[in-house]
Amino acid sequence: MTAQTELATVTTGPIPGSCKIYAAVPGRPDIAVPFREVALHPSANEPPFRLYDTSGPYTDPVEPIDLNQGLPKLRAAWLEGRGFGRTSGRLVQPADNGFVPDARLVPPCPAPHAVLNGQDKPFVTQYEFARAGIVTEEMIFAAYRENLGRAQAVEGAAARLKDGESFGASLPEFVTPEFVRAEIAAGRAILPANINHPEVEPMLIGRNFLVKINANIGNSAVTSSAAEEVDKLVWAIRWGADTVMDLSTGRNIHNIRDWILRNSPVPIGTVPIYQALEKVGGDASKLDWEVFKDTLIEQAEQGVDYFTIHAGVRLAHVPLTAKRVTGIVSRGGSIMAQWCLSHHRESFLYEHFEDICDIMRRYDVSFSLGDGLRPGSNADANDEAQFAELETLGQLTRVAWAKGCQVMIEGPGHVPMHKIKANMDKQLAACGEAPFYTLGPLTTDIAPGYDHITSGIGAAMIGWFGTAMLCYVTPKEHLGLPNRADVKTGVITYKLAAHAADLAKGHPAARLRDDAISRARFEFRWEDQFNLGLDPDTARDFHDETLPKEAHKTAHFCSMCGPKFCSMKISQDIREQAQRADGMQKMSAAFNQGGGEIYVTKS
Amino acid sequence: MTAQTELATVTTGPIPGSCKIYAAVPGRPDIAVPFREVALHPSANEPPFRLYDTSGPYTDPVEPIDLNQGLPKLRAAWLEGRGFGRTSGRLVQPADNGFVPDARLVPPCPAPHAVLNGQDKPFVTQYEFARAGIVTEEMIFAAYRENLGRAQAVEGAAARLKDGESFGASLPEFVTPEFVRAEIAAGRAILPANINHPEVEPMLIGRNFLVKINANIGNSAVTSSAAEEVDKLVWAIRWGADTVMDLSTGRNIHNIRDWILRNSPVPIGTVPIYQALEKVGGDASKLDWEVFKDTLIEQAEQGVDYFTIHAGVRLAHVPLTAKRVTGIVSRGGSIMAQWCLSHHRESFLYEHFEDICDIMRRYDVSFSLGDGLRPGSNADANDEAQFAELETLGQLTRVAWAKGCQVMIEGPGHVPMHKIKANMDKQLAACGEAPFYTLGPLTTDIAPGYDHITSGIGAAMIGWFGTAMLCYVTPKEHLGLPNRADVKTGVITYKLAAHAADLAKGHPAARLRDDAISRARFEFRWEDQFNLGLDPDTARDFHDETLPKEAHKTAHFCSMCGPKFCSMKISQDIREQAQRADGMQKMSAAFNQGGGEIYVTKS
Repeated sequence: MTAQTELATVTTGPIPGSCKIYAAVPGRPDIAVPFREVALHPSANEPPFRLYDTSGPYTDPVEPIDLNQGLPKLRAAWLEGRGFGRTSGRLVQPADNGFVPDARLVPPCPAPHAVLNGQDKPFVTQYEFARAGIVTEEMIFAAYRENLGRAQAVEGAAARLKDGESFGASLPEFVTPEFVRAEIAAGRAILPANINHPEVEPMLIGRNFLVKINANIGNSAVTSSAAEEVDKLVWAIRWGADTVMDLSTGRNIHNIRDWILRNSPVPIGTVPIYQALEKVGGDASKLDWEVFKDTLIEQAEQGVDYFTIHAGVRLAHVPLTAKRVTGIVSRGGSIMAQWCLSHHRESFLYEHFEDICDIMRRYDVSFSLGDGLRPGSNADANDEAQFAELETLGQLTRVAWAKGCQVMIEGPGHVPMHKIKANMDKQLAACGEAPFYTLGPLTTDIAPGYDHITSGIGAAMIGWFGTAMLCYVTPKEHLGLPNRADVKTGVITYKLAAHAADLAKGHPAARLRDDAISRARFEFRWEDQFNLGLDPDTARDFHDETLPKEAHKTAHFCSMCGPKFCSMKISQDIREQAQRADGMQKMSAAFNQGGGEIYVTKS
Repeated sequence: MTAQTELATVTTGPIPGSCKIYAAVPGRPDIAVPFREVALHPSANEPPFRLYDTSGPYTDPVEPIDLNQGLPKLRAAWLEGRGFGRTSGRLVQPADNGFVPDARLVPPCPAPHAVLNGQDKPFVTQYEFARAGIVTEEMIFAAYRENLGRAQAVEGAAARLKDGESFGASLPEFVTPEFVRAEIAAGRAILPANINHPEVEPMLIGRNFLVKINANIGNSAVTSSAAEEVDKLVWAIRWGADTVMDLSTGRNIHNIRDWILRNSPVPIGTVPIYQALEKVGGDASKLDWEVFKDTLIEQAEQGVDYFTIHAGVRLAHVPLTAKRVTGIVSRGGSIMAQWCLSHHRESFLYEHFEDICDIMRRYDVSFSLGDGLRPGSNADANDEAQFAELETLGQLTRVAWAKGCQVMIEGPGHVPMHKIKANMDKQLAACGEAPFYTLGPLTTDIAPGYDHITSGIGAAMIGWFGTAMLCYVTPKEHLGLPNRADVKTGVITYKLAAHAADLAKGHPAARLRDDAISRARFEFRWEDQFNLGLDPDTARDFHDETLPKEAHKTAHFCSMCGPKFCSMKISQDIREQAQRADGMQKMSAAFNQGGGEIYVTKS
């Protein structure tokens, strides 16, 4: 694979109507935070609207993109200052790439990568720094990012917080670095950033911050080119994925992961047991601690930011799934269940959990404690198996914290609406408020082909209730592998669900975007309406299907009512009349007496 | 327009994998209720799965479809028995079709249509029959339909009801005709069925029944062929629309409505003020009671089943919208607001409300009291203008009931999640539990192009809280006119939202379908999984994108994990082991002691 083939496939260039900016943090010129700014029509008399931006350098027209060189190492100097030891790193073995024959081998990414190891340092993880009262550069960066670059609380922030329903979350009017530190120290938030992933743009996952979303990518039997996977990554973050999980299996996964990490500005998560299983030829019973441990170190040195570890699937839990309609639907969960059964032993992940912590702490790899027993159907929701595992995850969370690790907890799955809140409440209680990271949940099982929507409903609700990150579901769920279009649909669906959750929680800045787009809508600033939306391209295309002419982009009507009659137009006339003199107010007063009373027959 | 052009465009034939059946009501061989049955793979050992079916004769391969003849007049004999007077009916005038020149005139539908008028009869509306303790054939038909043809309560119905959260709704384990009568008599449900729409298959709208959905169609400047509109109708009900609103404007609307009504098995709703406005050349100030009254009679004689009447937009309410971000976004609402302002008078709809009731009672046209002041943005949700109008709608509901009319109430709109329940609670209180019929609501404003999803979230929630019918929103909302694909996407999105609501309410039969599809999923019955879903075509296409071979339709794996490793397969192995002897149970018991206690370091 050459740089050319890569460059040929990766999507670059600004998102329509917006431009990339880097805002220096006041007092910290060394910390510049990327945002996206949408320039509005002059008639709006509004400054450019600033948006949170996950897309990295790929949307910056002046930034040279060369996947062979990888992204700028944003954190290098910060990490340098912490004096972590450099190691030559573990040698790549044939098994790491699934024993692929040389002819089929995807070459490793040539981007330079020095392997750091914090073993002997007192503070390695963001959790350890936070506990020690130290505010890291990552915390400052992420705090500024959460505020969308605002210098202080926006007007009406307090009112909006009061107006929302946060279910016990305590969102601040304005996010300070100290607030970020305190949230991480309390275990209520994580800042996933492996010390071997200097390219990452720091971000926060916690219920007192903006709700985040994750997109899954990964090669398969069908596709195994690094170019395609990096393109999927770039495509997913372009539309708003806050983190990306690489669920690759099969051949070349080590080298493909290399290309992904060196070129990813967002935290990357993996499920190490998938690669470990490949190393033992796909036979779960052949798994053991040694091969798993080796895989953890391999991926940690590459720079993976969080690992899904299914240590909560204990031998005792497996029989609890026997009467389920859909049994165990998590791959990792079923791998471990099969291992436990075939050896009739307690899970080696559970027994070696402290060893796992020691490895992950060394590189600041965050835990994503996997819910291997999540329900795979409405019928199995909130059952004994699911909650037994959740209790175990709560125990493991405390162990990981004691070891200095950052932790989040994975959640379901398939859950009808009336059983969603119980999941959030139990997770908060069982896991000491560690961030919850859920897959959906899907609120019904009857819509294959539309599960981005059945799950988007559950995602918006559980995000409102307190889930910190929502793992997207694409239209292909249960049916096949998502293509580019599916990835985009999944990401946009989850961005709107996360935003709906922020609005309902009363996030002080969330509604600014809704209000901006609503003003644009009311004032017929069509381009502004498109560009302020989550997907300007699709909005514009839909509009142009009926009204293609450029003139219609400023027309004071739309295709729904047509030029002859438009409710927005009339509302504007009404407003003018209302503003003209106070006649309307008098009129209102006059009629309000009559307005409230019971219906009177016409005179 | 000829029969040929019609037949050429209307979609007929069974939905893949299912066949149409007509089940005779026990003891009433004269009443046969249509359902759709999905035949399952022999390995399932399950009887065909029966589904509620809105598609009418169009999905019955043996039913001859000739749009010129219209549909069979299912209710003719029942109506005959009620002895309503036949009238020659109002003469069609040039204004009815927007003064279209003869060359452009769409001919009226040649299907025979006798106009009935119940003026002198003591009982005309379903509400009047219900109040008098009389169970109509329509009630029997609809009751049997709500039970999906079940002869009695399904197994576990009571348990499922108990398991759900119905927020004060009282769903029965089994729906009897007497229960239907009582709900209609209490005003908690309506059975929209104009005595001049004998083709309609009776259905119920009420919070103690299955949640229903409405799809909007309607011609515009761009399209004005009856063929296209009838095709949109047939397309919408094919995928599950329970009612359809014809929002046509412009020329030929009278004759196009004729074609729609004679060929519609579902209730048709309209907004008469749209046509009235056309009759006065589009100038709202020229509207008056006479032209509106004439339009009501015109459409009632054609057979429209419910009218949206914006009688709650009172002069006193208009100034309350002046400070809104998006003002008045309802077309009907802004028409009436403009009328009130230009004449500086109380709304003629409000002043003539009793006259309107008298006309609508005569034909049993149900009221859909329009929310002309619904919020058009999150910023305007739950404001003074919206709730002032809702109070007025409550007053008008009682007037309409006193006049013997059936009534439902329209609701928002744009509402963030945390403000949705207040809408439902206020509506129930203000309108005496009359059925609520909402548009979405959209839970955020930032996703133009995806508002079927932003609103599907709100629709599922408010349906759970008690809304009886959900008006769909398509991906083109705010941007353009929906095409066939948009109509289907909107309908499927709302069907899954309505079903998610039924599940959460604990509807005794709702989960049967989820469980059936989950069993099919777990047992790798791919065809059954597709066919039991809301959209078999799309599910099958998505699956075949990655695994096209026929063999894969029975393969014990899917493209997500591939043949080498599949969680479902492992779960089945686990189940077999679990069923083999009681070893697993012992094991479980042994470990459960350890399972609960706090983490112990590995031995």
